[in-house]
Amino acid sequence: MPDEVVREGLRGREFGLLAVVGAVAIAAGCLHLLGAPALVAFSAAAVALAGLAWTVSFATEQVGERYGPAVNGVLQSTLGNLPEFFVVLFALSAGEVVVAQTSLIGSVLANALLVLGLAFVAGAARSEDGIMRFGRRLPNDTATLLLIAVFIITLVGVSVASNDRASHHVKAISIIGACCLLIVYATWLVGYLRSDTEPARDRARLGLLASASLLAVAGVAAAFVSEWFVAELRPTIDRLGISEAFAGIVIVAIAGNAVENVVGISLAWKRRGDLAVSVIKNSVSQVAAFLFPLLVLCSLAFTHTLTFSLAPIYIVALLLTAIIIWQITGDGEATLFEGAALVVLYVILAAVTLYE
Amino acid sequence: MPDEVVREGLRGREFGLLAVVGAVAIAAGCLHLLGAPALVAFSAAAVALAGLAWTVSFATEQVGERYGPAVNGVLQSTLGNLPEFFVVLFALSAGEVVVAQTSLIGSVLANALLVLGLAFVAGAARSEDGIMRFGRRLPNDTATLLLIAVFIITLVGVSVASNDRASHHVKAISIIGACCLLIVYATWLVGYLRSDTEPARDRARLGLLASASLLAVAGVAAAFVSEWFVAELRPTIDRLGISEAFAGIVIVAIAGNAVENVVGISLAWKRRGDLAVSVIKNSVSQVAAFLFPLLVLCSLAFTHTLTFSLAPIYIVALLLTAIIIWQITGDGEATLFEGAALVVLYVILAAVTLYE
Amino acid sequence: MPDEVVREGLRGREFGLLAVVGAVAIAAGCLHLLGAPALVAFSAAAVALAGLAWTVSFATEQVGERYGPAVNGVLQSTLGNLPEFFVVLFALSAGEVVVAQTSLIGSVLANALLVLGLAFVAGAARSEDGIMRFGRRLPNDTATLLLIAVFIITLVGVSVASNDRASHHVKAISIIGACCLLIVYATWLVGYLRSDTEPARDRARLGLLASASLLAVAGVAAAFVSEWFVAELRPTIDRLGISEAFAGIVIVAIAGNAVENVVGISLAWKRRGDLAVSVIKNSVSQVAAFLFPLLVLCSLAFTHTLTFSLAPIYIVALLLTAIIIWQITGDGEATLFEGAALVVLYVILAAVTLYE
Repeated sequence: MPDEVVREGLRGREFGLLAVVGAVAIAAGCLHLLGAPALVAFSAAAVALAGLAWTVSFATEQVGERYGPAVNGVLQSTLGNLPEFFVVLFALSAGEVVVAQTSLIGSVLANALLVLGLAFVAGAARSEDGIMRFGRRLPNDTATLLLIAVFIITLVGVSVASNDRASHHVKAISIIGACCLLIVYATWLVGYLRSDTEPARDRARLGLLASASLLAVAGVAAAFVSEWFVAELRPTIDRLGISEAFAGIVIVAIAGNAVENVVGISLAWKRRGDLAVSVIKNSVSQVAAFLFPLLVLCSLAFTHTLTFSLAPIYIVALLLTAIIIWQITGDGEATLFEGAALVVLYVILAAVTLYE
Repeated sequence: MPDEVVREGLRGREFGLLAVVGAVAIAAGCLHLLGAPALVAFSAAAVALAGLAWTVSFATEQVGERYGPAVNGVLQSTLGNLPEFFVVLFALSAGEVVVAQTSLIGSVLANALLVLGLAFVAGAARSEDGIMRFGRRLPNDTATLLLIAVFIITLVGVSVASNDRASHHVKAISIIGACCLLIVYATWLVGYLRSDTEPARDRARLGLLASASLLAVAGVAAAFVSEWFVAELRPTIDRLGISEAFAGIVIVAIAGNAVENVVGISLAWKRRGDLAVSVIKNSVSQVAAFLFPLLVLCSLAFTHTLTFSLAPIYIVALLLTAIIIWQITGDGEATLFEGAALVVLYVILAAVTLYE
Repeated sequence: MPDEVVREGLRGREFGLLAVVGAVAIAAGCLHLLGAPALVAFSAAAVALAGLAWTVSFATEQVGERYGPAVNGVLQSTLGNLPEFFVVLFALSAGEVVVAQTSLIGSVLANALLVLGLAFVAGAARSEDGIMRFGRRLPNDTATLLLIAVFIITLVGVSVASNDRASHHVKAISIIGACCLLIVYATWLVGYLRSDTEPARDRARLGLLASASLLAVAGVAAAFVSEWFVAELRPTIDRLGISEAFAGIVIVAIAGNAVENVVGISLAWKRRGDLAVSVIKNSVSQVAAFLFPLLVLCSLAFTHTLTFSLAPIYIVALLLTAIIIWQITGDGEATLFEGAALVVLYVILAAVTLYE
């Protein structure tokens, strides 16, 4: 890593944060390998994972600042999903299919309900007339992508629930569905990136080599920490007596994915409503329409495959979430009440999964 | 009751109506206590209850005319739900949980489909271009509130239907859900009342003391009549051979709640589209997001508790109603065809419950 | 048929096409009556049916050109559904209830997803800014009609699935629902035809007598071919080993109904977005809110009656399709990505039914 660029580019606080993340990641590794109590090792891995998610996001931002906001946004959410990707992969290889599935769904729900809701509360509180405003195109596109994903998940779910003939071919249908979803996402992405007419201003404070190196180191570290995180998850679940569903929907989802989107809340607070909604919404649609189908295809290499077959409660939660966030954000305005409504839905969902 | 104010303020027709309501209420009491045939006693109690709902609504209007339209509207629907509140409470204490639940859902559906549909038919018929117009904010807020309530109800319903672990904690989840709903409703209410910028014109024709006295008398009478109404309901159901569901969804819902909203239809006919929609929509969202959760919490004091666990058919009816009235009213316009569509949905629903 | 009008009015290509359709229809009849292999006879009947659907559509257009676009559009989709009507009727009389039901649902889904999606792809590709534009009223009315039909279908489906008391009265509820749907459709139709303020320009190239004769001949031929088509369907299904659901949703739906709507795709390509959406959307709402209830009532004369009770997978597919096409078309704009999304949904649906 070229020292002079780091010295020039990184602010003291950022340098400090990177150092802390590195230290916690190393500590998490030691605790895992030395067989520390599950709860301690798991907590360290969770904090390290959230920190690495932030590091990946930060390094991507430094790369992305060379491009316009749309390219930057997509780049960020794509690489930002790297830790989540590793967690699900390691969970699948460890046979923790429920955790893998629920952490994916949890990412969608935590971002669409909790993070977006808090961003609306922040944005509306800081707006003079109590209404946070943003472009209508992205929320509506996200609603379309989410509804397409929900369509496949629901068809598979109903087929399994009614135990009809198609239910014996869930794997084949999931593969077809995954390919279809990836095609739609690619079509959307091309149109979205083309619409990015705003000229790119190079505000990167790190050289390309430094950014790429940081990204590579953080990515590799995220892979290691993900493995430790998943390995410590089972003893932690047993120890705390919580449900797998709660672990996936709340703990893994927030540690692996939602923390990085806290930036969306601070953007809303700074009255940058459009960018805030872009960061959070892109993350939601990407997990649902890109990461999920990609992992379905990747999982074909494993013993435990990931399909679109989910428990009824998550299907319904996804369907209603897709409808409600479309209803709330489709008009390009959000109030305090609408933000509170989204947050409350996540609380209820967490309460239900706690009892599962 | 100060005579001079009543003489000054009440029109002859209103005075007559109040007298009739009083007489019917007394008659209903006598019939109940003297053990008249169930059908007669029940009919008298139903008419008295509808009359008292109108009286409460009228007295509240006299109090509310001192404030702007938003305060007035909320005050009216809150106190106007008093008879409904008593009926559900007495039904629960009599162990009639199905009637309690279905009368709450019936209130939502009768107002959202039947009353709103008839208001649209009236409003569109009287409009020059066949389109009734109204503000878009309230219909969309109502859709949000209704969808939040439906989210909780559906999650609980799916959990119960799939008999998973959370289904053994329906009561706890309902309590959390009820608190969440009340918080969202309160957040909405504060924002809605603040938006009431129209200056209040004092058009009250009754003094505050007279209005409050009328309100108090009508409220107490509503409590008594509700008890007789519920007591006569079971023998009437057995006598007529109708289903509990039909009794709750149609008879109790219309007698206890929908009659007062007939005022919404007459407002639409008088080309006051905004106020018509406000009265009806406020009633819908209030029953779903305030009265229902409030009664869930109140019912903790009873042997038979009220939860958000409903039969699948009502869950689906609520979900589709929430979606359809959002689809129809979200654009701030309603045609004859859209009004007819809503009325027809209520007819189908009533037909299905008749066979339950 | 008056020769001079045909000579004047028909272009060479059209005359040739009509001749081919006639020849194929006769060939289909011979193959069926002479006991040709099922696959050959079925294919001939399918091609003849699609050709007759086009012929009916063409003749109706010649009649309809005397009226404004709304009358013309409704006339076309009504008579254009004639082949579909015959197919369902013959399927019911042959006891093929699953084929009858799935071909109706397949008509709705093939038009709403496949044909509309392809029209959007064509229209967006030919638009300068990649966005195809059209009026918002019709898509929203279609969404309302579709949601009303889905409401009835879903209520019946949930009742049957939960095996409650109403599930023993599916026939009675279907009759009430059918009458309700027809009333709503009639109310909508009156308003829609009245709104047709554009002056009618008589662009018909065929005399009224010639058009009516062509229509009558094509209609009668469609009835015959439908019977052969249905008769050859069962041996073809057995021969190919495909599911009844796939035969209904894909093969019958496309041959009996969707082919004629290909005109919608070519209209979108010619940048006539409004007319394209009108042709396709009218077809969707008419099958759902007119043809389906009409056939429910007609089927009362048969041993095997048609009801609104469908398999759960079709209920969910219809519900989600209604929501998604409203979400995509409600704003009067469609992009390439949205067209691709709709096409992909049909592909997934076809894949699922293939495995049923």
